[in-house]
Amino acid sequence: MIPRYSRPDMVAIWSPETKFRIWYEIEAHACDAMADLGVIPKENAEAVWKAKDVEFDVDRINEIEAVTKHDVIAFLTHLAEHVGSDEARFVHQGMTSSDVLDTCFNVQLTRAADLLIADLERLLAALKKRAYEHKDTVRIGRSHGIHAEPTTMGLTFARFYAEMDRNLSRMRDARAEIATGAISGAVGTFANIDPAVEEHVCDKLGLVPEPISTQVIPRDRHAAFFATLGVIASSVENIATEIRHMQRTEVLEAEEFFSKGQKGSSAMPHKRNPVLTENLTGLARLVRSMAIPAMENVALWHERDISHSSVERNIGPDATVTLDFALARLTGVIENLVVYPDNMLANMHKFRGLVMSQRVLLALTQAGVSREDSYKLVQRNAMKVWEEGKDFKEELLKDEDVLKALTPAQIEEKFDLGYHTKHVGTIFARVFGEE
Amino acid sequence: MIPRYSRPDMVAIWSPETKFRIWYEIEAHACDAMADLGVIPKENAEAVWKAKDVEFDVDRINEIEAVTKHDVIAFLTHLAEHVGSDEARFVHQGMTSSDVLDTCFNVQLTRAADLLIADLERLLAALKKRAYEHKDTVRIGRSHGIHAEPTTMGLTFARFYAEMDRNLSRMRDARAEIATGAISGAVGTFANIDPAVEEHVCDKLGLVPEPISTQVIPRDRHAAFFATLGVIASSVENIATEIRHMQRTEVLEAEEFFSKGQKGSSAMPHKRNPVLTENLTGLARLVRSMAIPAMENVALWHERDISHSSVERNIGPDATVTLDFALARLTGVIENLVVYPDNMLANMHKFRGLVMSQRVLLALTQAGVSREDSYKLVQRNAMKVWEEGKDFKEELLKDEDVLKALTPAQIEEKFDLGYHTKHVGTIFARVFGEE
Amino acid sequence: MIPRYSRPDMVAIWSPETKFRIWYEIEAHACDAMADLGVIPKENAEAVWKAKDVEFDVDRINEIEAVTKHDVIAFLTHLAEHVGSDEARFVHQGMTSSDVLDTCFNVQLTRAADLLIADLERLLAALKKRAYEHKDTVRIGRSHGIHAEPTTMGLTFARFYAEMDRNLSRMRDARAEIATGAISGAVGTFANIDPAVEEHVCDKLGLVPEPISTQVIPRDRHAAFFATLGVIASSVENIATEIRHMQRTEVLEAEEFFSKGQKGSSAMPHKRNPVLTENLTGLARLVRSMAIPAMENVALWHERDISHSSVERNIGPDATVTLDFALARLTGVIENLVVYPDNMLANMHKFRGLVMSQRVLLALTQAGVSREDSYKLVQRNAMKVWEEGKDFKEELLKDEDVLKALTPAQIEEKFDLGYHTKHVGTIFARVFGEE
Amino acid sequence: MIPRYSRPDMVAIWSPETKFRIWYEIEAHACDAMADLGVIPKENAEAVWKAKDVEFDVDRINEIEAVTKHDVIAFLTHLAEHVGSDEARFVHQGMTSSDVLDTCFNVQLTRAADLLIADLERLLAALKKRAYEHKDTVRIGRSHGIHAEPTTMGLTFARFYAEMDRNLSRMRDARAEIATGAISGAVGTFANIDPAVEEHVCDKLGLVPEPISTQVIPRDRHAAFFATLGVIASSVENIATEIRHMQRTEVLEAEEFFSKGQKGSSAMPHKRNPVLTENLTGLARLVRSMAIPAMENVALWHERDISHSSVERNIGPDATVTLDFALARLTGVIENLVVYPDNMLANMHKFRGLVMSQRVLLALTQAGVSREDSYKLVQRNAMKVWEEGKDFKEELLKDEDVLKALTPAQIEEKFDLGYHTKHVGTIFARVFGEE
Repeated sequence: MIPRYSRPDMVAIWSPETKFRIWYEIEAHACDAMADLGVIPKENAEAVWKAKDVEFDVDRINEIEAVTKHDVIAFLTHLAEHVGSDEARFVHQGMTSSDVLDTCFNVQLTRAADLLIADLERLLAALKKRAYEHKDTVRIGRSHGIHAEPTTMGLTFARFYAEMDRNLSRMRDARAEIATGAISGAVGTFANIDPAVEEHVCDKLGLVPEPISTQVIPRDRHAAFFATLGVIASSVENIATEIRHMQRTEVLEAEEFFSKGQKGSSAMPHKRNPVLTENLTGLARLVRSMAIPAMENVALWHERDISHSSVERNIGPDATVTLDFALARLTGVIENLVVYPDNMLANMHKFRGLVMSQRVLLALTQAGVSREDSYKLVQRNAMKVWEEGKDFKEELLKDEDVLKALTPAQIEEKFDLGYHTKHVGTIFARVFGEE
Repeated sequence: MIPRYSRPDMVAIWSPETKFRIWYEIEAHACDAMADLGVIPKENAEAVWKAKDVEFDVDRINEIEAVTKHDVIAFLTHLAEHVGSDEARFVHQGMTSSDVLDTCFNVQLTRAADLLIADLERLLAALKKRAYEHKDTVRIGRSHGIHAEPTTMGLTFARFYAEMDRNLSRMRDARAEIATGAISGAVGTFANIDPAVEEHVCDKLGLVPEPISTQVIPRDRHAAFFATLGVIASSVENIATEIRHMQRTEVLEAEEFFSKGQKGSSAMPHKRNPVLTENLTGLARLVRSMAIPAMENVALWHERDISHSSVERNIGPDATVTLDFALARLTGVIENLVVYPDNMLANMHKFRGLVMSQRVLLALTQAGVSREDSYKLVQRNAMKVWEEGKDFKEELLKDEDVLKALTPAQIEEKFDLGYHTKHVGTIFARVFGEE
Repeated sequence: MIPRYSRPDMVAIWSPETKFRIWYEIEAHACDAMADLGVIPKENAEAVWKAKDVEFDVDRINEIEAVTKHDVIAFLTHLAEHVGSDEARFVHQGMTSSDVLDTCFNVQLTRAADLLIADLERLLAALKKRAYEHKDTVRIGRSHGIHAEPTTMGLTFARFYAEMDRNLSRMRDARAEIATGAISGAVGTFANIDPAVEEHVCDKLGLVPEPISTQVIPRDRHAAFFATLGVIASSVENIATEIRHMQRTEVLEAEEFFSKGQKGSSAMPHKRNPVLTENLTGLARLVRSMAIPAMENVALWHERDISHSSVERNIGPDATVTLDFALARLTGVIENLVVYPDNMLANMHKFRGLVMSQRVLLALTQAGVSREDSYKLVQRNAMKVWEEGKDFKEELLKDEDVLKALTPAQIEEKFDLGYHTKHVGTIFARVFGEE
Repeated sequence: MIPRYSRPDMVAIWSPETKFRIWYEIEAHACDAMADLGVIPKENAEAVWKAKDVEFDVDRINEIEAVTKHDVIAFLTHLAEHVGSDEARFVHQGMTSSDVLDTCFNVQLTRAADLLIADLERLLAALKKRAYEHKDTVRIGRSHGIHAEPTTMGLTFARFYAEMDRNLSRMRDARAEIATGAISGAVGTFANIDPAVEEHVCDKLGLVPEPISTQVIPRDRHAAFFATLGVIASSVENIATEIRHMQRTEVLEAEEFFSKGQKGSSAMPHKRNPVLTENLTGLARLVRSMAIPAMENVALWHERDISHSSVERNIGPDATVTLDFALARLTGVIENLVVYPDNMLANMHKFRGLVMSQRVLLALTQAGVSREDSYKLVQRNAMKVWEEGKDFKEELLKDEDVLKALTPAQIEEKFDLGYHTKHVGTIFARVFGEE
């Protein structure tokens, strides 16, 4: 997580202030529940809420931690400074640090998931808008980087929409994976704390109680969460790669938006670099790589070890902040992408009709010409295009053998782009629910 | 995928015979749909079914491929040898190789998912059985590998059950991810083939039509699939790690089943190695690593490139065969695991009651002793245990200062294991739906 | 490792026959050394060599293993069938299975490394040849996929040469990493076997004795080995990516060789797909991914556990066979790559001289025009090229303000390609040791 | 990189101040070289050194970058504020941003490598010291976590020494990999800048000129560098895992140092958690995971794209800072590790001599007893130990059938630990060069 690739809302989730605030809420709600159970006095539970509007002093807590070498104890000590050490004496009773740390981490991840879900929704809106805008903008489809048959730019946006819509669904599942809390005490047996406390705290924090924890919340949940971020990041790379290809000098079917004022633009008008999507490509690599240590975190020793902690202190913020930034940047790129329909047509015609050769071959066969002869007819005209720069359709219209099988109108028809776009509406209906 | 770590049902899914059979079904169903649409003659569609009971000759197809350098063409050529080349002339019309290859791959992955789901269900049954069997078998819970507080072996099995139950749910989602088919022709526009063909073929094969494909099925689906396998593999490692720890000489709370006849067992009775769970640990590493290339496969160039293919030819079989084997092996390990309750108790008492020191500390405080004094009282008795090998409870019962705060009965009560197991039923109800 | 992506020499290294042959040699040489030490009778050592020319019967060994459940014992049993069970009774004395397995694995990896080194040498020869062939073939250099300044195709080949030459050096280091053997007995203390045996066996097999082993050879060596394969694979991807870009329809500066007879080539002459380099891209992903489990294998428990074994049974063959295949395929691609110098020039001139705009800007400044005015002069002529399709040089030669600062000859000089290629020889001398 | 897991010297390498200082030196030395070549006036080159002792104002540079959107231009603008804009007008002439950025990055990585090399040297010193201290401290060797045969704690330290010594060698190679600089101008042709400038700058910065660059330094170097860090991190995990095992309650052969004052230590003396080595385990996962994106960075498009940059802005600092911290923490753990030789002996005797059963078996055979009978003799005595808690040696000394084959002295000798430690000196000589 570095400032250059960060947005403030996501960064705020991972601030010490937010963390301590969540810790506070966990402890305060736990006291309420314990008071309801009669385990601690009501007035002590109520006293904790005196700190309700306090902004905890991070420096002071760090100062205490430097002595106690324990972050949760440092926080509790500081809390007592606000609540009164006598009033605060039942805070955290029967709980372990992990009850606070793991529940807090999941609150943070859940909030991060909410931001990522909102990011995806904005990206989807942008993709949908551009899809309809370019629904009928014909461009050449490419397999292996080689011209294949025509498609439309709208279909390109639509397929990215469908992919990101799946990612939205995965992200919602991932959110559910980590929206659990645990207040189950040492080794998770509830020996020292009643399950009702966990239920109350989870309810207040919008979490579901972890059915069975072992002091820690099981890490398969987090592995699934970070793996999902890795899949989404890979989709970001997928879209970024398409745009980088479209912007390359020889293709130039689209460009990242380049503001008029940006220096150098007009003296070297060809030199506009797709730096945003290149950047996204790199960010995708980062997010994806974090899936592996998250999976390695699953196999903790016995009821728990703390090897997961240093991993999560890093990838918790890093993966969510980076993906949030990437999704927002990508949304901007999509919204502002400058599309060049004329260049799309020019590219498609680069080999003067040759992309239709397969359709002509099929038409000849269907008109009764043998496969071998059809092939020869197409071939001899194709080679004139390829080697002499002729126009494929014109050559076919001059070829007497071809004309024996197909009328000029039939030949013309083979070059009709409508043939290729006739099901765009069908596909849009599948993707967006309407044509 | 190596024979040593393979099971026949999963291997069969990836055999050339299965692949060609699926290709055949795709082509035959597509012909039916095209005949219904009037695109090809009914009799040609019917003719294809003449090969219904044929076992395709893999060697013959490979022989043809050696010439044509194209696997789908080789298969179609061979198919024509069965159906008649004239009758077969409409087979594959308007389709591309990817329509066949990608749809087939997803059929294979879906079948693989079905086996993995069944594997998980068997594993869950084994875990549940062992959980109830050892619901009340007390053992020490360990955090950081260090004795913490008592728990039960049933809770250990129960938490693995809950984890694998989440994996079952993830596996079902992963199955849905890849249970799609695409028969959309070149660059996915349906220009050359009607969407109704895709619908018919998918319906017959138990798939959902891919809403928008680009000649290929989008690879984010496969990335999510293989990432899920990676998460499940990490859970396999989690359970394997627990068993390896339990079997180590100094712990010996459980052992992988070791048949009486197995050589060496009784001359070196201490030397029974947890080789199955060690093996599972390695297999988990393998499956997990395949998530990364699956994610790298997402960003194909434009409508498609074929870089994904060499990856999938490997990880398709490798990840599913390996995980299937691992789940089955793990199920056997769980079913036959030899549990040593006596050793569990002996381990728990290794430091003669010291694991209860925290409970005693709390009791003293609650009895009105100051925190500092309570600490000193516990400390001085604890050190006698630690340094002189005394029994903690006995020392407390002899300590007059302790006796001023707690009655002997109260002290005894602190060493009651029922305190730690009182919520086992609650947790079982959460995990299994019943106590 | 699948046949499609395998070459026989590398596959042979990993065959059961090779493995048993190496086991045999380890055992036989160990007997010699033990006989020299007087630990076992000379005649028993000599007897083992009776099997010198035997091809061990893999099926028979597997049959025995099915009973003994132990591969090394199965082999020894079979060996005794050849040597005589009485004569063979000292074979393997004082040794453990790992002495045989680990030493054998390193012999296999060393041989694999030798093949990979030879592969790299062949690839280097091909790259060097093509580099000199196209030393002066000018093409546009591209940053961000956008035209930047001219370079030469020879420099492209030369940089791949330099990169693969570094990989050759890394591969040699990697070979040294794993060219060790260990015959150190249980937990590696040499309690049951003299270090002289290890020295003799290693000497005979071309290995260095592992300075300190723990029954197993330490796995950091293998991690370094497989990480190196991952780096080399990434370089394969680097070259493959360049060629895929060069072959795309709009660029067409080179093509993978496409034999005249290959079907479809002339009817759709534009549709030649860079399938070999796409395939290499996928293979690179596979090899690279195996670095992670190899690194996870380093932390074995205490003196050894066997979790590494299932990983290595897979990645040992898979990574080396795949990389061997990839390097050989890449060498073929390079040797036969069809380069299109005319298209290179045509691409460079796509924007009629605009790539020289920066040079002109610099020249104007150096001629005393202020930075702001220089910029305006370049800009107004550049925009005519960009928007009206004019030629940049011609426009400059018509611009009176430009002509006040630069003579026509000076303007012409700015478009001289020799300016950009003047240090090609210097760079070749650095890379190849000669211009 | 988070403060909790960072050390100041390594952090300083990655500060903006350091970065700008290196940029300054690159530019200033480049000016000198250009002045020597007569390309720019001497006085302008000299003027740049006026800023020699300036601490560049990071806030001011960021302020300028906010306008120019370009970090190198922002720095040059700020530099001109110190040097005088007229004097500074030749700074950076003929260079590109990458000349500065890539050369700077390699200077930073080289310095980071120097710190890591020093870290490794300190770790080696600690390991060597502890190895000699415990050269003869006998403990049980374990395979599969199960008691095998005796070894010594010195050998454990010695094998970690040997492993880290290999890592030191790898780290030195990795340093050489990235100790290159490039000042080769746009697309690396030296068209706009003489190679002599590169040579001078590299010489001054302690780098080697990159033989062939393409505006950027080739990323296979960085991939190899980060892969090496991943291997070293895996070795850190290896040592950490051993210590975690040694500290677990049932084993307790060593403990991380726990200062007397640390709270809780004496009231729960059993509850000292190996949190440092658990932490190291997590940090190893992090560093290792960064090898993958570093390898993905190798395949840049054509002469360069900038996708590598966002990856490196993260993993550059993250991997080096984390590994530096980990190595230092591990060194502290080793230096202060509390070793319990008595517990080692107690553990070894847990099964009262059974670990010697294999040696006894061998002795019986060598004494002429058939393999089957030897096995039965050992077995019947072993079972008495295993099931009745008898002492193995004592049972053997009472077994008349055993006594027919072996004298009491011979039996005694089989339990002599010297048998197992006789080659410790030999191994030490191999590892340390002296016994």
